[in-house]
Amino acid sequence: MDADTKKTALRMIPYGIYVLTVADKNGAIAASTVNWVTQSAFSPPLVVVGVKADSATYAQVKETGRFALNMLGKGQQGIAFSLFKPAQVEEGKISGEPYRAGSTGQPLLENAFAAVECKVTDIVERGDHHVIVAEVVDAHVGQALEGRPDSTILEMKDLGDNVFYGG
Amino acid sequence: MDADTKKTALRMIPYGIYVLTVADKNGAIAASTVNWVTQSAFSPPLVVVGVKADSATYAQVKETGRFALNMLGKGQQGIAFSLFKPAQVEEGKISGEPYRAGSTGQPLLENAFAAVECKVTDIVERGDHHVIVAEVVDAHVGQALEGRPDSTILEMKDLGDNVFYGG
Repeated sequence: MDADTKKTALRMIPYGIYVLTVADKNGAIAASTVNWVTQSAFSPPLVVVGVKADSATYAQVKETGRFALNMLGKGQQGIAFSLFKPAQVEEGKISGEPYRAGSTGQPLLENAFAAVECKVTDIVERGDHHVIVAEVVDAHVGQALEGRPDSTILEMKDLGDNVFYGG
Repeated sequence: MDADTKKTALRMIPYGIYVLTVADKNGAIAASTVNWVTQSAFSPPLVVVGVKADSATYAQVKETGRFALNMLGKGQQGIAFSLFKPAQVEEGKISGEPYRAGSTGQPLLENAFAAVECKVTDIVERGDHHVIVAEVVDAHVGQALEGRPDSTILEMKDLGDNVFYGG
């Protein structure tokens, strides 16, 4: 397999930008910007997220079995880039972003356009990122969206001409 | 959980449009348009596809353990819509689309912009669609792409203002 061809083919997959947040039972919070996300079933509503296997966020999701997926909107590049780095939780903010607890106790970024709260059902431990399968148990839309929801989300290609996370 | 809120939040996830093709060891072919696709690891290169659990395509992927994911390009709405219906294979074409066998024997649509040939590693049998995890073992790019690869793929929102497969 030619490495450049593989990279180009896989980079055709379009991605939105999300902040995965997780609080453990003691309230400790981890958060990371992620993009490898898809729905995988309507009934029950399932989502799949690929998460870096050696990250603090992954370890906490695996232990807690819960997380929230915060959908960023157009113009929120700053939040995406700040959460490429390990999250700093202080003064009631996650890396400077205000949040509140959702119905399941998971952190919801106040400025995200939408969020889903999830319960992990399965993990496939394969590769440098693992596959987390989770049921959506609550959902939030923070502001009225104009037009198609998938036209309002911040996308990978909005982060810069040469920014990719795939290939 | 409010059903409309859940639908709107999940419809923020952007999707490309793909034709999943599979040939069994006797050469019988199944094919379907799919959109629930994400990469899930760099090493090895893994992709995840959500496939309708009661479909002929799913049954054949599960039995064969192989498939190809053909990336459609801008303007190829016709191929996407024709393969929402069960594939008709005749005169060397899949629902009218010419194809050839890839290095692993899986069908590659001649007109697709790119394709990856995959070997199934894991299946999570949960929900009305199941989660297929697969390693990319070969890749093809059919034509020189201009600009970002993720700007050239046919997207769900290109299929019509009210066409969604998610929520």
